[in-house]
Amino acid sequence: MVSVIRIEDPLDPRLDDYRDLNRSDSRPDLPGGKGLVIAEGLLVVPRLCQSRFPVRSVVGFGSRLASFIDEFGDPGVPVYEVTREVLAQVAGFDLHRGLLCAADRAPALSVDEVLEGARSVVVLEGVGDHENIGSIFRNAAGLGVDAVLFGAGCADPLYRRVVRVSMGHVLRLPFAHMEGTRTTWQRGLDELKQRGFTVVSLTPDPAAVHLAEAMAGAEKVALLLGAEGPGLTEHAMRATDVRARIPMAPGTDSLNVATAGAVAFYERDRALRLG
Amino acid sequence: MVSVIRIEDPLDPRLDDYRDLNRSDSRPDLPGGKGLVIAEGLLVVPRLCQSRFPVRSVVGFGSRLASFIDEFGDPGVPVYEVTREVLAQVAGFDLHRGLLCAADRAPALSVDEVLEGARSVVVLEGVGDHENIGSIFRNAAGLGVDAVLFGAGCADPLYRRVVRVSMGHVLRLPFAHMEGTRTTWQRGLDELKQRGFTVVSLTPDPAAVHLAEAMAGAEKVALLLGAEGPGLTEHAMRATDVRARIPMAPGTDSLNVATAGAVAFYERDRALRLG
Repeated sequence: MVSVIRIEDPLDPRLDDYRDLNRSDSRPDLPGGKGLVIAEGLLVVPRLCQSRFPVRSVVGFGSRLASFIDEFGDPGVPVYEVTREVLAQVAGFDLHRGLLCAADRAPALSVDEVLEGARSVVVLEGVGDHENIGSIFRNAAGLGVDAVLFGAGCADPLYRRVVRVSMGHVLRLPFAHMEGTRTTWQRGLDELKQRGFTVVSLTPDPAAVHLAEAMAGAEKVALLLGAEGPGLTEHAMRATDVRARIPMAPGTDSLNVATAGAVAFYERDRALRLG
Repeated sequence: MVSVIRIEDPLDPRLDDYRDLNRSDSRPDLPGGKGLVIAEGLLVVPRLCQSRFPVRSVVGFGSRLASFIDEFGDPGVPVYEVTREVLAQVAGFDLHRGLLCAADRAPALSVDEVLEGARSVVVLEGVGDHENIGSIFRNAAGLGVDAVLFGAGCADPLYRRVVRVSMGHVLRLPFAHMEGTRTTWQRGLDELKQRGFTVVSLTPDPAAVHLAEAMAGAEKVALLLGAEGPGLTEHAMRATDVRARIPMAPGTDSLNVATAGAVAFYERDRALRLG
């Protein structure tokens, strides 16, 4: 039996994790940022509760809490019931999903840890858009990628919008940050090669080989994706084994980075399944 | 030499096409909807000017108009220069892109017209989200799809947000609406078969064949995509030749419909290029 605590005062300090929600999940080094991990809704809250992130509490409308507890059981942390009005006052805006969960950041994983046993990884450089990061995690998880590595210039993957857009897969799929600055992190790509990974860079360059050719026969693949506009840095391109392209129709634009990633993850999975 | 007309009065009737912009591009049958086609920004406005849609005027900040005219030349319609403040008052919100173009809806194309010479088409059922429709057009254009056909229950493809998300490709890639109601439009799929198209439905059903197998060897393909939640109707599934799936990792969700479409368009293009 899960005991649900009803809270009627929006100023109750037990709701502090959800206060001013548009700021509280910012990185701890930013003003007002508590660095909490926040999940929303009946699909993603259970995923946070099952993750490596230490959950602090669950809060929601009565009906949503009932559905959550029905499906998930006891989360082992305080569960607070609030009305829509109280939650809106605490968070600073209306949350129609009516179910939230807060967790602390888990200790960061090392590159070594996330590469353990991995055959397909994606490496991101300069992907600064939260929705793109979220979509990349959703697509990577769905299409069999084992880990995500961050080079320089990427947005925080534990921001609330990333958690939501990824459908919680950012909480499940292992990720790590590669060491170095904007011009030195690429040395980590050499270590990937030493571990047997073929580093495949996605580029709109017509001189690159077809993605299918790039993926054929590689035992371990590290797929390198850059930001849509500027693309990959020269340093990253130089550390690449194979430059791959998705052929585009004349007069069209390159795909969104998350979509291009999905196509590449699919091709990698296809090569592993069908040879 | 393009003559640019400066307008300083936000009430000037020559700006009426851009008034209350969040409503004016709604379908003509909706309240306040003028059914205009609106393009925004330096990438998409030239695409509207080159399209089959009859352009009415171009409006923008001085610097943006200069860039536009520099690149595009004379659009052959009135060009109005306004300040950021005037445009915000007319449109009802701030438009930081600072370049807009309005056109009338062109006569709808028939299914016969858009199928002329087409080898790869996509058919949508119940895709009600404007961003998804926009992304599907962007991905379809980029990955070599020849036309888009609409079954029942889809959002209006000429809504402003679709135009923007599609990067203007909704103005270039031919599309047509199939006749019938929610339960009868699927008869049109039989006509596609009579024209030699293999109707391939994308489904998360594990009993479906791998997408690559579904696409192999087909001369003409009509790819059927449904809404993310409910998927395709039974009627649409019954009119299908091949049920295809993108294999997903255990415990993950199906892909977003536009992303799944991109993967399928890529596989179709791959089959045509690499056999």
